[in-house]
Amino acid sequence: ESPRYGNTGYSNGMTGNGKLMDLLDEPVPGVGTYEDFNTIDWVREKSKDRDRHREITSKSEQSTWALLHSISDAFSGWLLMLLIGLMSGALAGCIDISAHWLTDLKEGVCLSGFWFNHEHCCWGSNQTTFQERDKCPQWQSWAELLGGSSEGAAAYIVNYLMFMLCALLFSFLAVILVRAFAPYACGSGIPEIKTILSGFIIRGYLGKWTLIIKTITLVLAVSSGLSLGKEGPLVHVACCCANILCHLFTKYRQNEAKRREVLSAAAAVGVSVAFGAPIGGVLFSLEEVSYYFPLKTLWRSFFAALVAAFTLRSINPFGNSRLVLFYVEFHTPWHMVELVPFILLGIFGGLWGALFIRANIAWCRRRKTTRLGHYPVLEVLVVTGITALLSFPNSYTRMSGSELISELFNDCSLLDSSQLCDYNSSENRPAGPGVYTALWQLALALFFKMLVTVVTFGMKVPSGLFIPSMAVGAIAGRLLGVAMEQMALNHHDWLIVKGWCSSGADCITPGLYAMVGAAACLGGVTRMTISLVVIMFELTGGLEYIVPLMAAIMTSKWVADALGREGIYEAHIRLNGYPFLETKEEYEHKTLAQDVMRPRPSDPLLVVLTQEGMSVGEIEGVMADTDYSGFPVVVSQESQRLVGFVLRRDLVISLDNARKRQEGVVSASLVFFLEHVPPQPFSGPPVVKLRGILDLSPFTVTDHTPMAIALDIFRKLGLRQCLVTHNG
Amino acid sequence: ESPRYGNTGYSNGMTGNGKLMDLLDEPVPGVGTYEDFNTIDWVREKSKDRDRHREITSKSEQSTWALLHSISDAFSGWLLMLLIGLMSGALAGCIDISAHWLTDLKEGVCLSGFWFNHEHCCWGSNQTTFQERDKCPQWQSWAELLGGSSEGAAAYIVNYLMFMLCALLFSFLAVILVRAFAPYACGSGIPEIKTILSGFIIRGYLGKWTLIIKTITLVLAVSSGLSLGKEGPLVHVACCCANILCHLFTKYRQNEAKRREVLSAAAAVGVSVAFGAPIGGVLFSLEEVSYYFPLKTLWRSFFAALVAAFTLRSINPFGNSRLVLFYVEFHTPWHMVELVPFILLGIFGGLWGALFIRANIAWCRRRKTTRLGHYPVLEVLVVTGITALLSFPNSYTRMSGSELISELFNDCSLLDSSQLCDYNSSENRPAGPGVYTALWQLALALFFKMLVTVVTFGMKVPSGLFIPSMAVGAIAGRLLGVAMEQMALNHHDWLIVKGWCSSGADCITPGLYAMVGAAACLGGVTRMTISLVVIMFELTGGLEYIVPLMAAIMTSKWVADALGREGIYEAHIRLNGYPFLETKEEYEHKTLAQDVMRPRPSDPLLVVLTQEGMSVGEIEGVMADTDYSGFPVVVSQESQRLVGFVLRRDLVISLDNARKRQEGVVSASLVFFLEHVPPQPFSGPPVVKLRGILDLSPFTVTDHTPMAIALDIFRKLGLRQCLVTHNG
Repeated sequence: ESPRYGNTGYSNGMTGNGKLMDLLDEPVPGVGTYEDFNTIDWVREKSKDRDRHREITSKSEQSTWALLHSISDAFSGWLLMLLIGLMSGALAGCIDISAHWLTDLKEGVCLSGFWFNHEHCCWGSNQTTFQERDKCPQWQSWAELLGGSSEGAAAYIVNYLMFMLCALLFSFLAVILVRAFAPYACGSGIPEIKTILSGFIIRGYLGKWTLIIKTITLVLAVSSGLSLGKEGPLVHVACCCANILCHLFTKYRQNEAKRREVLSAAAAVGVSVAFGAPIGGVLFSLEEVSYYFPLKTLWRSFFAALVAAFTLRSINPFGNSRLVLFYVEFHTPWHMVELVPFILLGIFGGLWGALFIRANIAWCRRRKTTRLGHYPVLEVLVVTGITALLSFPNSYTRMSGSELISELFNDCSLLDSSQLCDYNSSENRPAGPGVYTALWQLALALFFKMLVTVVTFGMKVPSGLFIPSMAVGAIAGRLLGVAMEQMALNHHDWLIVKGWCSSGADCITPGLYAMVGAAACLGGVTRMTISLVVIMFELTGGLEYIVPLMAAIMTSKWVADALGREGIYEAHIRLNGYPFLETKEEYEHKTLAQDVMRPRPSDPLLVVLTQEGMSVGEIEGVMADTDYSGFPVVVSQESQRLVGFVLRRDLVISLDNARKRQEGVVSASLVFFLEHVPPQPFSGPPVVKLRGILDLSPFTVTDHTPMAIALDIFRKLGLRQCLVTHNG
Repeated sequence: ESPRYGNTGYSNGMTGNGKLMDLLDEPVPGVGTYEDFNTIDWVREKSKDRDRHREITSKSEQSTWALLHSISDAFSGWLLMLLIGLMSGALAGCIDISAHWLTDLKEGVCLSGFWFNHEHCCWGSNQTTFQERDKCPQWQSWAELLGGSSEGAAAYIVNYLMFMLCALLFSFLAVILVRAFAPYACGSGIPEIKTILSGFIIRGYLGKWTLIIKTITLVLAVSSGLSLGKEGPLVHVACCCANILCHLFTKYRQNEAKRREVLSAAAAVGVSVAFGAPIGGVLFSLEEVSYYFPLKTLWRSFFAALVAAFTLRSINPFGNSRLVLFYVEFHTPWHMVELVPFILLGIFGGLWGALFIRANIAWCRRRKTTRLGHYPVLEVLVVTGITALLSFPNSYTRMSGSELISELFNDCSLLDSSQLCDYNSSENRPAGPGVYTALWQLALALFFKMLVTVVTFGMKVPSGLFIPSMAVGAIAGRLLGVAMEQMALNHHDWLIVKGWCSSGADCITPGLYAMVGAAACLGGVTRMTISLVVIMFELTGGLEYIVPLMAAIMTSKWVADALGREGIYEAHIRLNGYPFLETKEEYEHKTLAQDVMRPRPSDPLLVVLTQEGMSVGEIEGVMADTDYSGFPVVVSQESQRLVGFVLRRDLVISLDNARKRQEGVVSASLVFFLEHVPPQPFSGPPVVKLRGILDLSPFTVTDHTPMAIALDIFRKLGLRQCLVTHNG
């Protein structure tokens, strides 16, 4: 259960054959570690690390080897970051490539090698024109392969069935693997990572099994065509890599606070590879995920995020030397008047975000409380079946989420052959029939995506929320963009249009609307602000479009906040009942520490230990009667002035240890927390000295401290407990 | 002296004609404010703001007007940011344009209007080719205007003399204006702003006079040709704007902590307009300047930085729709082997940074301690004279710093006519004679800049360090870049070159080397890391070049840190003796609070007040005998258990107030810090109740708290004092 509470230190102590006093002064193994589902004490962890660092520094002056050790210790952080970047980048590349291949496998097979995806398969083909590139002889759809024909109703039905069959197979495999090997691998993982970073311990959540299973099932889940994305889970994958790599370095293995610094950096790495946005990733970690983020971590996360981005780029999973499928470059500027539709998109995004969170949380609560929760495999299969059934006929839902976004972001050039770019080539470029068909299909896709995402997020498969949210926003944005464009083209004598839209010029970019819409919806769901702007900025690579993005994202956040304070991750944290102290919210009430503290005035008095005069038996009795995790130590029962604080876990371990190893310790042995034990009569049993486990600097506030200040202390210093004193 | 210690509240109280008790319960004016050159108490300021906010929220449910007030209060932060962005952007635009004009005025005058600079003057001219554009008939050099000829030795001497004369005139005006009106306007201002943001109060440092004089003298100083830049002072200018605009909003006028949040955002705005890098500016503020930077401020700073960047862009001071003169776009990729010269540039940057800091600090200390400091005007004139004398003959020193950097960053295209791009047009493009001349001139310019910057920074004119540091690095980088390029061209059969440098292709970009060198030198001087990378990223607009930049900047920081821990701003803070608690450094020693606290064991006992039983006279006596800024209040002299803490300033004001306004208060009146005053005999003088000014929640640590933790508490909570207790 707790691998670090081992016996190694203990047996070393016994073989050391030293004097009794030496044995007692040695640190008892297990003291200073934590149990599962507990919160760490940041202050204690940090001072542990400082002590370790001081020791290494002082030793380094003594010998060359120690100096080398000290240097390697200083650089181990950078090395660790390098490794995390390389590993996460490589994993993200593998995930991208395999998901691409599996997604294409739903539609057909490459004859020159089944491991090629559609695009790779047709690279060698002679059909070099844009339209025909997709139809090379090596690539055969399932109908061609099984029935020999690629036309007609029968072929369509064969393809349809194979599509559904593959989707069901993939999602079945995903959910079975998750259930069998790593139950923690489901979901996006971001709520749990937020909780872990705030100091909570969930053993195994970032372990190697979770990593392996999450990577495999993520590919399967994405390929099955469910309305989910790989971006959120990539953060979890990067954090798993970081946690596993931490075990290589003593410095990080043994210190929970240091490890959390590394995990913060890993969250940045995850976003960096997910969106190809290293700066955005660092800001995401800073704004959204992290709890304690010193400057040193900022710089290291940036380094790791860059390494990961470059690793991914050298793998080049999309063959376009970009890190994401939906990288865009726009060229036409936008006009002030367009801020109105952008803000409308922001309102849409905010409304959708707030409603999505409510609906999703209600659905997840239903899953937890009703019988629905007992059949996770069936649930996944049913949702996959319905998704596949409904999505095949519509080409915009059949393609994967990131392909859809890429198509919607696309700025129609004259050569573009896609349906959305089917403009008549007359002077004003009015929309052709293809565009109108596409609009209908997109409208249907919008409703479909909105509904199916609500039931998908939270199922027992790895599922990210970024891509589905962005897809919803991108569809809405593109629809609005095309509408605006046609309005401007048909009515370019209108006053507002006249000023900037000269006849025949492309004055409105529907792709930009899609991007603004995507950002607004994502902002509404996650309540990210600055990091989202920067991610989008890195996707487009120009300062030019920051103002539309900011206007939409800010509107979206305000609208969503007005309908419900929490983002999706906070809502899921609360739903799962994790302990999490929100850092962003202001404490509004005017209570004082004395109104909040336990025990309340009506409760029995506070249980305290005295610094001298209590026996082992009495202390064990106190511990048996209560279930507090720690006890204040006071001068005496009469003069309850505070001396220190002792943790239950440390006390249990130390008393057990004393009983086992120290001869003659019985229940009547006196326990001393004093530094100098007064001389004892020879006849009595030996005393137990526990000064070592006593925290001599517990944090205290007076009973008149406003709760807002107390909360601030908890947040900023990462306390586990705080004692309330009155006149000392 | 202290404008907020006014009498308004006082006279209101008197005219209110209430009962005596009401008068006493009213807040005494002046309580809770600070004196000049004092440190603020962040915790107290924040709880003041929370109280204010709570009051507005609770009132907002009562009436529509109060609701409107509450909404306007919530949005006032955003409005303030908008105003700061607009004002700073506009000011930066004016500074750019006027500096450009004045710099050109040193060389000649435009006949079509003296207010045109060289470039504007020649826009209308017919010579449209690149080479001749600079020689339009409307623009006349001083020699043409005064002597009628533009050729020959006489004309050269006339130009030389006019150049020096103008330079001396501008710098004389600058130093006289600074001395006469705003002594705080000199220097870059960043060290002082760091100190102010950490909670120190320097009245007038961010006032309107400082703003006006700094703006004017900055233009003059930059135009005089001294080796200084406008980037650092722009941060000061933006902070002045912010401070002045804060006075429009009660929320920010009355709260020192809230005002510092705004100032942090303003620092971001300053860098945003200086480099056209909004994201880099925000990170600069976060990494380098700010002390307390909550997420809300992050988002607001970003907004303000963007507004400022767009304001500046719409002014378009350089006519290239870019925000800086030295915006570049490179197109050729770099090769792994090139990391070696990049790291060499990093070492150079680190060495130069460390040496510059030492030399500059030594020179500034000399100025402070010797007679040199008594003649600031003369010093400025002498330095300007020498600078102008030596810089005129060399065209690379004659041009302004940002023009030089822009020239060095420039990627030579085939059409480029500058001397540095004088390559032979044969297959391998070996360097022509122009390049070799340029290299000699650049080498001379490098030594000149290195020496003259040391004596320039710290003079009594506004002077930024960014541009001179970048210029030094850019020259070194360009020299190395050209050397590498020629080596690769002449020896492209060498093994390391062979792999990536095919014959005839441009495989090395000397401009990139210049940029990397500039970043390395700036990093060495300021020890900025991530913000510098992001600023450079925004200047080039491509992720491609982040790795070279990071390698150089990291090397530079490590080398510089090995030679001296402090950056130039920290060194100047220490030189000037400002109180500043460095947030980045780790505390290494193993002392406990009891070893550091005052009074020391050998000193006389701690001076305390008791919660009851002391008279006004006794307290005044205690205050007269000591000069502590505050006193702990204990239960009684015998049982010194802590009740609270009272500040000297509050005590003085309250006692004065009581003597003036409360009848019959004499020295023998008893002072009570208790909530309920025990009944007094009728015969005695009235009692003074001071419960109101008593801080009931002073921060305490136990005597066994390690200093590292105590320091952490001070840093994170922004404390002004902390009491050390032993067993309560």
